[in-house]
Amino acid sequence: MSPFTGSAARTPDWKHLRVEHADGVATVTLARPEKLNALTFGAYADLRDLLAELSREKAVRALVLAGEGRGFCSGGDVDEIIGATLSMDTAQLLDFNRMTGQVVRAVRECPFPVIAAVHGVAAGAGAVLALAADFRVADPTARFAFLFTRVGLSGGDMGAAYLLPRVVGLGHATRLLMLGEPVRAPEAERIGLISELTEEGRVDEAAGALARRLAEGPALAYAQTKALLTAELDMPLAAAVEMDASTQALLMNGEDYAEFHAAFSEKRPPKWRGR
Amino acid sequence: MSPFTGSAARTPDWKHLRVEHADGVATVTLARPEKLNALTFGAYADLRDLLAELSREKAVRALVLAGEGRGFCSGGDVDEIIGATLSMDTAQLLDFNRMTGQVVRAVRECPFPVIAAVHGVAAGAGAVLALAADFRVADPTARFAFLFTRVGLSGGDMGAAYLLPRVVGLGHATRLLMLGEPVRAPEAERIGLISELTEEGRVDEAAGALARRLAEGPALAYAQTKALLTAELDMPLAAAVEMDASTQALLMNGEDYAEFHAAFSEKRPPKWRGR
Amino acid sequence: MSPFTGSAARTPDWKHLRVEHADGVATVTLARPEKLNALTFGAYADLRDLLAELSREKAVRALVLAGEGRGFCSGGDVDEIIGATLSMDTAQLLDFNRMTGQVVRAVRECPFPVIAAVHGVAAGAGAVLALAADFRVADPTARFAFLFTRVGLSGGDMGAAYLLPRVVGLGHATRLLMLGEPVRAPEAERIGLISELTEEGRVDEAAGALARRLAEGPALAYAQTKALLTAELDMPLAAAVEMDASTQALLMNGEDYAEFHAAFSEKRPPKWRGR
Repeated sequence: MSPFTGSAARTPDWKHLRVEHADGVATVTLARPEKLNALTFGAYADLRDLLAELSREKAVRALVLAGEGRGFCSGGDVDEIIGATLSMDTAQLLDFNRMTGQVVRAVRECPFPVIAAVHGVAAGAGAVLALAADFRVADPTARFAFLFTRVGLSGGDMGAAYLLPRVVGLGHATRLLMLGEPVRAPEAERIGLISELTEEGRVDEAAGALARRLAEGPALAYAQTKALLTAELDMPLAAAVEMDASTQALLMNGEDYAEFHAAFSEKRPPKWRGR
Repeated sequence: MSPFTGSAARTPDWKHLRVEHADGVATVTLARPEKLNALTFGAYADLRDLLAELSREKAVRALVLAGEGRGFCSGGDVDEIIGATLSMDTAQLLDFNRMTGQVVRAVRECPFPVIAAVHGVAAGAGAVLALAADFRVADPTARFAFLFTRVGLSGGDMGAAYLLPRVVGLGHATRLLMLGEPVRAPEAERIGLISELTEEGRVDEAAGALARRLAEGPALAYAQTKALLTAELDMPLAAAVEMDASTQALLMNGEDYAEFHAAFSEKRPPKWRGR
Repeated sequence: MSPFTGSAARTPDWKHLRVEHADGVATVTLARPEKLNALTFGAYADLRDLLAELSREKAVRALVLAGEGRGFCSGGDVDEIIGATLSMDTAQLLDFNRMTGQVVRAVRECPFPVIAAVHGVAAGAGAVLALAADFRVADPTARFAFLFTRVGLSGGDMGAAYLLPRVVGLGHATRLLMLGEPVRAPEAERIGLISELTEEGRVDEAAGALARRLAEGPALAYAQTKALLTAELDMPLAAAVEMDASTQALLMNGEDYAEFHAAFSEKRPPKWRGR
């Protein structure tokens, strides 16, 4: 959503993801259905780079992250990632793990809401991608599995040990990250891991509707709400209240706030400009 | 609850709020029922100043915040606040938004428990006032709506982006602050936004009973419990444990702790002194 | 789990606790059933010292904390602790309260998962011990009561005002710590205070089974998961993601991760070594 355009060109072709744009909504689809959308090095790198590109495109006001086929994402590919990392040296391992963390940071820090559309399995890195999103729209087939310890790794992967306790509380988060057991939709909804539960087979439709609603709304207000939610997890109350005050003063100088008041006075719906 | 009296006089008359005192309980009623208790600049300023005054009065041991008429509080008045802010300059906007944040800080930092008695609508700033309270006593008619984005503003108003994730988790908080949709009593209870659900029409009675119980109890112990809950959200574990240790050592030197032991030994209820 | 052995000898006999070892699982039983396992100065000191000793023993991979008889633990003994503290000076009170906090820090910081097996009452310090554990296995007779204010003390005892909001949210935590009312098993499960609810009378069995499962698993992965969950409550997102990356790089150099891949390729269960 940045107006500042530099020299960097739009990437013409994302090889490891399907990327579509329509009416302010970017839809990113993990599209390796024959492998349950298992992530490869290329897919991680594309997610990292794509989110950075979209963050400077003014036209993107919401993003849907979806999976093609039977599930959302089965996580890092056992052969292409686990196998490959076994012959990496320490510096390479650190580079790889930093890249996956950068994807999560990019999801949390990009200036538009991110909606994960989850059906079927969201496992390992797939579960953390969904966790990092602002909204998790899921259907009854959804199951989340933070199965890192099942492959001998730490449950704190890609920020999961930071994010999950802040979403479902420390008790549930400990159980989920330590044991790596699947959490099915009813439990996920009960503990606060699902934002919207849809009928079976309707997640893409519902996620798209939510994204369009957000894209048509006061986009700057949404962007600042997201930025404050992300930042204030890491701030004391006094600083948070001060940050809210200056953000709100900024938005009260903006066009959408004046438009709301004009529309209210004229008894008509507001026409949001996103600024 | 401070014993230190200075020169400042009690305000004889609160023009924008109704304030009553009885048996250690202060009851503050938003009393503009014809406007669903919409807040004005004067009401915000009175809340800020009243909480500062009450914080230095030894006799106040609990506070009830209630709304007269059909609901708790519909938030900032559309004409008197939204309209007026449209012609403010940046410094004025910052002053206004700092004032609203100061009210929330005062609710979190005053040395007595605050009980919001919520029936009907608690919207916008009204929802954040209730959120900042220590207890939310609500009846089935209660509905909370953090509707800031609906007027083109940030959902992080008055500390909401700090407080709400710490009360209901980041997932629910994102949904509530981003979309501004109403949360009705059953959902509010399910996600942890309600402390006590009463029968319809009984919130003032139940909030008053809770306040009296707190006012008759070990007030210094309650004050310190509140202070630690507030402070330890912003502290690491090691520092929190050290702060608990010195607080508890302090209270173990106090009269109420000795009184508990005497009463227990004599098989009678303790007579709390609040110190 | 440390390989570094110094001069300090194993304590041959724990006078205030029953300590058993089997197959990587240490079981610590509060065994004063005639007093509902009320804690004494000796029991606190033993818990502090035992956890430090076990933390440097390579053989310990999981710990169960249980209570003998009718309940888990009724908290600090009214006569032996409350009575005794009434004649202590300020320095002694601080020493005592620091010791109890050290027990909680030791439970959070030891390099193996801690499982509280809770039946019947878990009150006062007993409730906080259970709260500090990684898992709370409980049966329908379990009831948690943070009853500090009922004896005239602060609800923020031993880190409770830090931990409880992070487990059940600030709203429930305020109610529980301020009022000190018992939370029975159904509510405890609903608000996220119970990790696993068992049939009545089966907590020791279920806690033991979970401990054995953890002890037989990838112990280093579990230890790091616990360490990250504990540390990242106090860290900003960017730092947490960096910490995850270096931890995961470390574990990807470890034996268990390679063993997972070998076992997966050979279609057999992995043989975890815990390193």
